[in-house]
Amino acid sequence: MNELRIFAPATIANVSCGFDALGLCLDTVGDEMVIRKTDEKGIKISKLVGQDLPVETEKNVAGVAGMAMLNKLHISHGFEIEIYKNIKAGSGIGSSAASSAGTVWAMNELLGKPFSAKELVPFAMQGEKLASGTAHADNVAPALIGGFTLVRSYKPLDIIKIPTPDELYATVIHPQIEVKTSDSRSVLKENITLKKSIIQTGNLGGLISGLYTSDYNLIGRSLHDEIVEPLRSILIPGFNEVKENAIECGALGAGISGSGPSIFALSKGEKMAENVAYVMSETFKKLNIDYDVHVSKINTNGCRII
Amino acid sequence: MNELRIFAPATIANVSCGFDALGLCLDTVGDEMVIRKTDEKGIKISKLVGQDLPVETEKNVAGVAGMAMLNKLHISHGFEIEIYKNIKAGSGIGSSAASSAGTVWAMNELLGKPFSAKELVPFAMQGEKLASGTAHADNVAPALIGGFTLVRSYKPLDIIKIPTPDELYATVIHPQIEVKTSDSRSVLKENITLKKSIIQTGNLGGLISGLYTSDYNLIGRSLHDEIVEPLRSILIPGFNEVKENAIECGALGAGISGSGPSIFALSKGEKMAENVAYVMSETFKKLNIDYDVHVSKINTNGCRII
Repeated sequence: MNELRIFAPATIANVSCGFDALGLCLDTVGDEMVIRKTDEKGIKISKLVGQDLPVETEKNVAGVAGMAMLNKLHISHGFEIEIYKNIKAGSGIGSSAASSAGTVWAMNELLGKPFSAKELVPFAMQGEKLASGTAHADNVAPALIGGFTLVRSYKPLDIIKIPTPDELYATVIHPQIEVKTSDSRSVLKENITLKKSIIQTGNLGGLISGLYTSDYNLIGRSLHDEIVEPLRSILIPGFNEVKENAIECGALGAGISGSGPSIFALSKGEKMAENVAYVMSETFKKLNIDYDVHVSKINTNGCRII
Repeated sequence: MNELRIFAPATIANVSCGFDALGLCLDTVGDEMVIRKTDEKGIKISKLVGQDLPVETEKNVAGVAGMAMLNKLHISHGFEIEIYKNIKAGSGIGSSAASSAGTVWAMNELLGKPFSAKELVPFAMQGEKLASGTAHADNVAPALIGGFTLVRSYKPLDIIKIPTPDELYATVIHPQIEVKTSDSRSVLKENITLKKSIIQTGNLGGLISGLYTSDYNLIGRSLHDEIVEPLRSILIPGFNEVKENAIECGALGAGISGSGPSIFALSKGEKMAENVAYVMSETFKKLNIDYDVHVSKINTNGCRII
């Protein structure tokens, strides 16, 4: 096997109460990539379609992630990568993570799986570091491992896969507005109250518990973010309305996907997730804001061969 | 049935990464209580043995908790309570919670269970309010419900029972020093860094996950407290040594029980918990500090008839 065509999934980081710790993997939104072995050493981005992004190895997240992995191996050949982007950069559903994770996942497959999915995470994190300045794992981990993932710790890196209830669906709407990552970072405050931290821990614990027990109601009750959402939602016009309408429609809960501007909702069942997509869309329509909307089962496997 | 003799268990609140949210119930440490129906209305503490505490209904946590429950019922009689304290007040293993929880649990049994265990929590919390000024639930919830409990939210009150791995044992050592609750509260800071809050959420999520999957190693990796332990441990002479020695001996993790001064450790298996009790004891012996030490399986039922 010298070549693979893969699906590199979009992901939702934070998931309300799990800021910088929790992420989930989507099944119907993602990029396509072709990765092939080449005689030439190193990583070459031979094609990049769909987004205006640099193709130089050291400036492209896929190149950087792939090189991080190659540097751990002693092999005499290299890889060529074609990237067909469907995920818009800056949408808040892990565009850079898909490319980074997809690259190392496919390379690992072509090499006969020298690494486990968890062991691939640190390589993909190097792509995230290029994209955002921070080697965060909350998008690359679910893209590589699938389902819900918890970053228990960064030092040392400790990723825990959390089970996904069968009927859990995500709706994600991406309003076509630009929120700079630097802005979404700069609204955060260095300090928070101990009281808010306790509320956040309670909700994160509730969400994890709800995921283990398929308690959809508990999942819904736990989807609150006391810390980041109140600050970041200001950057997303219509956020409160979209969230309230989604929940009124029957979503278990809703919040900002990653650093935004995408807004996600979780629902029990595909039909409800579709209904939620409709009311979210109608809300942005009324505000004259263009959008992309997706409904997706939670993808419990992560990247896959297509 | 007009009279019951019960065991009212001691509890460990916080459990390192679950400050003000998590608690667990002990099986071999606790008070005994006798509760009997009386013709007279109201609650009367007829006996209190083992600790020097007020017996006036409105000044005793059992009295206050019992009255909170009675006020929700329309019954023509009252209750008389005998309390045989084995748990020392101020030890940090839920002395007041045992009396409050035991009272309402036994009353509920004698009345034919009008309330579920979860519904009893708010009554018992009134006893905690008398004892500490705050109606916290992290000791009374595990005493009433058993096992590990998570306070997902106070407004509204939402208590989640988390499963307990079969081989999980607790060791608790109570150094005979006085730490005033007011001191252990006053060392806390109103604000914490967002970074520490994220670490705490990761660990709490890891601990909950470990409890669901009986992953003892994960439970151990998650037993860290970045927020409160560094501040409160200063009030407990020998804390760092006791903790380090417990972990070196093979405990999964260790930390402050409630607001201290008791120190707890969790271990896989009774034998290991006994070994940990020995090394913890030796450490306090060397420091010439008297202590009580207990080894206990996690009590997954809470209060019980004896």
